[in-house]
Amino acid sequence: MVDYKAPLRDMQFLLEELAGLDEIAGLPGCEEASGDLVAAVLEEAGRFAAGVLAPINRAGDVQGCRLDGDGRVHLPDGWKAAYERFSEAGWIGLSLPQAWGGQGLPRVLSTAVWEMWFSTNMAFAMLPQLNVSQAEALLIAGDAAQKETWLRKVVSGEWGSTMNLTEPQAGSDLAATRCRAEPQADGSYRVFGQKIFISYGEHELTGNIVHLVLARLPDAPAGVKGLSLFIVPKYLLGADGEPGARNDVRCISIEHKLGIHGSPTCTMSYGDGGGAVGYLLGAPNRGLETMFIMMNEARFGVGIQGVGLGERAYQFALAHARERVQGRDAVSGESGRPILCHPDVKRMMLSMRARVMAMRALLYAAAGWFDRARHHPDAEVAAKCRRYVDLLMPVAKGWCTEVGNEVCDDAIQVFGGMGFVEETGIAQFFRDARIITIYEGTTGIQGNDLIGRKILREKGETLHELVADMGTTLEALHVAGGLDEIAAGLAENLAALRLAMDWVLGEGGERPGEVLAGAVPFLMLLGTVCGGWQLARAALAAQRRLQGGAAEGGGEGSDPTYLQGVVELVRFYFATFGPQAAAHAATVCRAGPSLERFPEAAF
Amino acid sequence: MVDYKAPLRDMQFLLEELAGLDEIAGLPGCEEASGDLVAAVLEEAGRFAAGVLAPINRAGDVQGCRLDGDGRVHLPDGWKAAYERFSEAGWIGLSLPQAWGGQGLPRVLSTAVWEMWFSTNMAFAMLPQLNVSQAEALLIAGDAAQKETWLRKVVSGEWGSTMNLTEPQAGSDLAATRCRAEPQADGSYRVFGQKIFISYGEHELTGNIVHLVLARLPDAPAGVKGLSLFIVPKYLLGADGEPGARNDVRCISIEHKLGIHGSPTCTMSYGDGGGAVGYLLGAPNRGLETMFIMMNEARFGVGIQGVGLGERAYQFALAHARERVQGRDAVSGESGRPILCHPDVKRMMLSMRARVMAMRALLYAAAGWFDRARHHPDAEVAAKCRRYVDLLMPVAKGWCTEVGNEVCDDAIQVFGGMGFVEETGIAQFFRDARIITIYEGTTGIQGNDLIGRKILREKGETLHELVADMGTTLEALHVAGGLDEIAAGLAENLAALRLAMDWVLGEGGERPGEVLAGAVPFLMLLGTVCGGWQLARAALAAQRRLQGGAAEGGGEGSDPTYLQGVVELVRFYFATFGPQAAAHAATVCRAGPSLERFPEAAF
Repeated sequence: MVDYKAPLRDMQFLLEELAGLDEIAGLPGCEEASGDLVAAVLEEAGRFAAGVLAPINRAGDVQGCRLDGDGRVHLPDGWKAAYERFSEAGWIGLSLPQAWGGQGLPRVLSTAVWEMWFSTNMAFAMLPQLNVSQAEALLIAGDAAQKETWLRKVVSGEWGSTMNLTEPQAGSDLAATRCRAEPQADGSYRVFGQKIFISYGEHELTGNIVHLVLARLPDAPAGVKGLSLFIVPKYLLGADGEPGARNDVRCISIEHKLGIHGSPTCTMSYGDGGGAVGYLLGAPNRGLETMFIMMNEARFGVGIQGVGLGERAYQFALAHARERVQGRDAVSGESGRPILCHPDVKRMMLSMRARVMAMRALLYAAAGWFDRARHHPDAEVAAKCRRYVDLLMPVAKGWCTEVGNEVCDDAIQVFGGMGFVEETGIAQFFRDARIITIYEGTTGIQGNDLIGRKILREKGETLHELVADMGTTLEALHVAGGLDEIAAGLAENLAALRLAMDWVLGEGGERPGEVLAGAVPFLMLLGTVCGGWQLARAALAAQRRLQGGAAEGGGEGSDPTYLQGVVELVRFYFATFGPQAAAHAATVCRAGPSLERFPEAAF
Repeated sequence: MVDYKAPLRDMQFLLEELAGLDEIAGLPGCEEASGDLVAAVLEEAGRFAAGVLAPINRAGDVQGCRLDGDGRVHLPDGWKAAYERFSEAGWIGLSLPQAWGGQGLPRVLSTAVWEMWFSTNMAFAMLPQLNVSQAEALLIAGDAAQKETWLRKVVSGEWGSTMNLTEPQAGSDLAATRCRAEPQADGSYRVFGQKIFISYGEHELTGNIVHLVLARLPDAPAGVKGLSLFIVPKYLLGADGEPGARNDVRCISIEHKLGIHGSPTCTMSYGDGGGAVGYLLGAPNRGLETMFIMMNEARFGVGIQGVGLGERAYQFALAHARERVQGRDAVSGESGRPILCHPDVKRMMLSMRARVMAMRALLYAAAGWFDRARHHPDAEVAAKCRRYVDLLMPVAKGWCTEVGNEVCDDAIQVFGGMGFVEETGIAQFFRDARIITIYEGTTGIQGNDLIGRKILREKGETLHELVADMGTTLEALHVAGGLDEIAAGLAENLAALRLAMDWVLGEGGERPGEVLAGAVPFLMLLGTVCGGWQLARAALAAQRRLQGGAAEGGGEGSDPTYLQGVVELVRFYFATFGPQAAAHAATVCRAGPSLERFPEAAF
């Protein structure tokens, strides 16, 4: 097993140069996020991830979860102790409001911290991640009493959280939800129905589990406009606010899955014994709106999983590539050298690093937009940042999860035969990663969201704004000089993006089927270009630091080898992944017609 | 679980139109391969695959293999009965010489048949596949007595076969082989050493197991020129030629793997008890040459695994996409329709089908070259076909296995959350497939072989010949008319290939590191273009059949919906995968310099 080393230098560099850490620390409400505090938190998180979460990751995979005859779910050994330390350290509330027990730190910081949790133990980290999502829902939709009752314990982690959307007939299509809720005289509800794929639906780590359940009120309109959200606790609260009697909800089976074995995926049954007591959260029939806001947060989190798993897979593969001796150096003919000297192995390693950095660059930049959207005093700046977040959320989720999978796949390839052997440990990341392009909306769903809701609905306005900003970076590259391949690459990518964008906007109204056939290629195109854009900004910053010499801060981030490496990495990205942009753009514009003409009977 | 349906129509169409089945049936030694016989064999194989191999595939995955305390390896239930039926039916010898008990049928037929075995149970099919590879080795290198002793029972399947190359320190680098063999007075040898990753190294399905072991003679030259091949049976033969005493070879552990659980991957120990009796196969120190010929066969077989797994994953996903109802039709707004109506799902299904057909088209065409190389009376034709086989072997292996993995990955995506659940069955194909880009030489090794041995060594001569042949297809497309997008796509692809080819040939001598950095992208480029080339030929043939109407043979292969589907599929291939060619070509030409400049310390 390869020790985890938090990529603090990369994180720090990207937070400073791309996310605008300094600027964000100057925003009202973010004052605590000083450079020193951020560095200290990152370091502490790195230690926690390496020391507490990484060591139990493989054991959790091997042992998995078990449902016993009494409906109890047993989590892997080590989960309980790690969870206690995790919640006691206050990690759940890192970027949740101080008013409810959180630390109120900005998203840019928590994004880097969550990357570490996902790198070292994704199956475990899904548990506190659910608390964060649920806290957001309670903040958005809860009334004062509900916040008082539930929110604080969710933020502290004393109670666990779940999100209950999926039913057997209602997966991506929530309109088909059948779960129902009947109002009671006391203002509460009785919830009935079955939910599947509920992560951490049952366990005994926490004193209670707060289920958020999507269900229909009697006489609710059909479809998604008739869905309401209910708080359904595992244990009903006594007069003292403490968990008391068992509610009518239980786990009836858990899935045997390809990966994330340490995270129990439960089928939950509500109301078998007469009705599960629930409390309406937010307005009736407006459940989906709350769910969507919360899901946006969760989707961003899944994008971070892509980076986290990719980073860890990269670390595994790098350790192997530096250690394993095999064959001769293709150029010098020397033998006895590690396989990293083979051009193809170096290519794989550099490909992995370039994509991890591109994903991270995009997500950290997006986290900066989040923080500005929430805290920036200039309403125009805040609004623009909100537009960028909204536009790019499906890209952050869809592209980072697809690319995260590719990186894990490459890591196995670097290990060769050893990669296929489970004991090596890398196969787990490959298996774990396979869920991330699926849950919280498949890549196809993200693509449709991007094309339909985020681009066509507003006639591409924000996308045009984004492309103009990329043009500014391109100009800066020209001004800076010495970065010609990067400038040429970004220019090529922008041309490809404009081509596809014009086609989508031009055909979108007339030929929706053809345009949607290119939704995922368009998403991959936009991800590739945005990742390259952010990396181009990173190259500019690295060059500036190189030219500034030690004057710029000092510390690891001013090491010339590192900074030169960043510039070369960005060149490599544009040489290797840049050309994909034109390919995706061509597919967007060309694939639709034959897709539509292909007779279904010919499959 | 989804029933397997052999894709007989596709197979028949491609064998007739691309592999040249009629022509091959007219070659000396291939006379038995009449259209009727081929159809009958395919049908029977399809029944066998669906009825015998498919039903035990998942059980084999779940149960896996077990090594007991006595060194016995227990295979999954059902393996023994299936193997008896498989060998009794004579499937092992399908394309092996009649003189040794085979049926002497051409490679074009056996390629399609093996595709079915791999589709339905790859872990099982690896066992008889080893017999075929070993039979080739015995045919190449065995003397008359050795053939008499070993070959017939390997062809019949009465005895099992293994190939023993890898050692802990000698994976891709066989030069590091340490296993040794000491000559004995009686002309035999004593073999000592440990081999790892030995598929079916131990089991009790067969009366004996014939191990082929790569080892060094005393005073053999260092490196790969000092390797010899030895026949080391599990049981020594008595005077009657029947298995008698146990030889000094045993399985000391089996691997816990990501996939192919039904295939035991053994660590084999030779000579722990004084020396394993072995017999030199072929000339001393020439073991690698024999191994390479055999490996070429095996590599082609692994390419077929890519198609087989891809086809089966496609069938799974298609069944789900036709069955699962979710959401509304994006265009008509209708609800209650299966997800195949969603443009993105249809895109995934069409992508899968297009790539499976492209791989199959290339492999069947290559199988036709194999047969002509061996049997064509015109020495020039035979020599050209041999050149094509040699050039494209790394592509058949490398590209088809990479693409096979992509297709299995897409299949999971079509299933969404259900795809991540092991019971669905599709995850197994995804896991099983992950080994095929690794064993018998990783994709990186294939890329280096392609660039180094197959292109640079002969200054691109055969590649130029191949490109000229593709040009002929392009002309035919122009003449035929009505296939403009396909012609434009092929022309674009050829331009991309020429660009990369010229760069490789131009820089190959001076900058080997940079060129090898593009080896895998070049392999993917050549695969993409060759697959497209063969599909373009398929589109021409389909159009010709459509224009010829029922006159052309009749039967399923003349169904206009099917033929129209082929033409649209090829259009879709060029719209979706064609653009990748230019991207790969750009990467080939651009990635090397930044790869070389990137400082290893900056990883």
